[in-house]
Amino acid sequence: MVLANRPTGLVDENTLRMESEPVPEPADGEALVQVRYLSIDPTIRTWMDDVPSYLPPIGIGEVIRSGGVGEVIESRTDAYQPGQLLFGMTGWQDYVIADAGEKSMQVLPDGVPPGIAIGILGVTGMTAYFGLIDVGKVTEGDVVVISGAAGATGSAAGQIAKIKGAKKVVGIAGGAEKCAYIVDELGFDEAIDYKNDNVAARLREACPDGIDLYFDNVGGSILNDCLANLALRGRVVLCGAISTYNDDGPPTGPSNYLTLLVRRGRMEGFIIIDYLDRFGPAQMEMAGWIAEGKIKSSEHIVEGLEKAPDALNLLFTGGNTGKVIVAL
Amino acid sequence: MVLANRPTGLVDENTLRMESEPVPEPADGEALVQVRYLSIDPTIRTWMDDVPSYLPPIGIGEVIRSGGVGEVIESRTDAYQPGQLLFGMTGWQDYVIADAGEKSMQVLPDGVPPGIAIGILGVTGMTAYFGLIDVGKVTEGDVVVISGAAGATGSAAGQIAKIKGAKKVVGIAGGAEKCAYIVDELGFDEAIDYKNDNVAARLREACPDGIDLYFDNVGGSILNDCLANLALRGRVVLCGAISTYNDDGPPTGPSNYLTLLVRRGRMEGFIIIDYLDRFGPAQMEMAGWIAEGKIKSSEHIVEGLEKAPDALNLLFTGGNTGKVIVAL
Repeated sequence: MVLANRPTGLVDENTLRMESEPVPEPADGEALVQVRYLSIDPTIRTWMDDVPSYLPPIGIGEVIRSGGVGEVIESRTDAYQPGQLLFGMTGWQDYVIADAGEKSMQVLPDGVPPGIAIGILGVTGMTAYFGLIDVGKVTEGDVVVISGAAGATGSAAGQIAKIKGAKKVVGIAGGAEKCAYIVDELGFDEAIDYKNDNVAARLREACPDGIDLYFDNVGGSILNDCLANLALRGRVVLCGAISTYNDDGPPTGPSNYLTLLVRRGRMEGFIIIDYLDRFGPAQMEMAGWIAEGKIKSSEHIVEGLEKAPDALNLLFTGGNTGKVIVAL
Repeated sequence: MVLANRPTGLVDENTLRMESEPVPEPADGEALVQVRYLSIDPTIRTWMDDVPSYLPPIGIGEVIRSGGVGEVIESRTDAYQPGQLLFGMTGWQDYVIADAGEKSMQVLPDGVPPGIAIGILGVTGMTAYFGLIDVGKVTEGDVVVISGAAGATGSAAGQIAKIKGAKKVVGIAGGAEKCAYIVDELGFDEAIDYKNDNVAARLREACPDGIDLYFDNVGGSILNDCLANLALRGRVVLCGAISTYNDDGPPTGPSNYLTLLVRRGRMEGFIIIDYLDRFGPAQMEMAGWIAEGKIKSSEHIVEGLEKAPDALNLLFTGGNTGKVIVAL
């Protein structure tokens, strides 16, 4: 599945094109991997724009860049054995070559389900972990607000905030069903339904002493409303801006940014690839929380590579709860 | 000089009103101070709006809040002797009561000129010092950009950046004269004339590897242009937003804020009153730099209390170079 044309707004039938070519032959030190699952993440949409970012744009005619899990079919290296599951950057395609020298893919430990490996123990969960703990410096007693709270990263972030002793965790999500899910299933203290509530008013009600830590997945008016209600020395973690990724041109800037000045606040962005060398201990801790039942995650599975564009759009239309995965 | 009506835009003849009342009598523990100099700072304009900030708005009918220097005329405390100069919050008025118990004013050390006390060694200089060093964490080798660079705080910030080993210090100021002043007199490496240059293009030229530290006094489009050119892990220190203080309603937000995300940047605000208990050592260090000729400051003196509103407006029309002081 290659990029045919750069999208404006949601991905549509003109954006992508299925191409066929012979299954590649692994060279010495490589293995042939059949892709089983794709991790569908909002950042993929940003790579489709011709805008410099933390990774180069996907070129026209190139396979869509994506994380995933696959099975070793044929191996010419001792690093990978046929039948093993590997995870790493697979791209939106049926087969990929894993290079043992470049460590382009890693062996999935026995017993870890693929959905967990690319979800809560993968980039998705690690984004919540390092964003909240390292960038946001979540502290006991914090009032924490999470947007995109029913999404894969947001739902993990809210639960980690509770584990770390936040006084109150408020999630912002779209629709009554998602709001009920994050409170009843995931243990958020309150939910704000951005599709039906007045977000600014509800934030003032839910956080009368202000927001100590806002974990932003969405940007736009919700970011602006949270800035307006920032507590003294409040922190804003910029994880994403999913409400703006389909905009043509730059987003509307947050007009309330000067609360950062009068309330001595901080707004900071991060990219999870900077933390790759620290995934090990964080994944151990996260696995422990999963085992103790302190963190739950859910998956939204879409079947078939040809459905990958629709799966990506779900993230922007709010059609998913939890981690979106394409099963091939 | 009291607040008669809240201004929209620049202060005008309807904003303020001169009132006369008897000179106050000092009680036990107090001294009567005749005000000699007023420190004219952009933040005074923000206190005239009916908007919650780090201090309450000035009430209608209240004397305009302001720093200043005055001379003790009559004293009923051992803390202050007649003839001594004191500095502190004087307000825009001819006389003020200094309360020794509340330490509302402090004795100016012998030999320190009043203009220095409320300028480079006062809140103005300390704002540059703590903003650049504590909030901005200026580091050897940094590429630093300062807006409002010919103003009192900006000119100090640029010189401190050089002292602290910045690789390059670029100042943004309005007009050829100010640009020549900051380069030729103050030692900035380059100047950008925002009234005549294309700021975004000049920033790219002057900082081809991006901006490590942007000290923002102005907000608006210049903040947005600097965000666009932020280096990896660049920092934005929000000191002020003088281009927006006369706006009716919220300012335009910085649409390029997402560079904070893709370049792992940080934007942080501060208020100098949080640092009052650390002024001592910082003032010592600053006094040393002045003595060594490493920091220069200039003053723009306006005569007469009745001219204080005009003096304040100079800050917004760009009519000043250096610290604006009203001499009574």
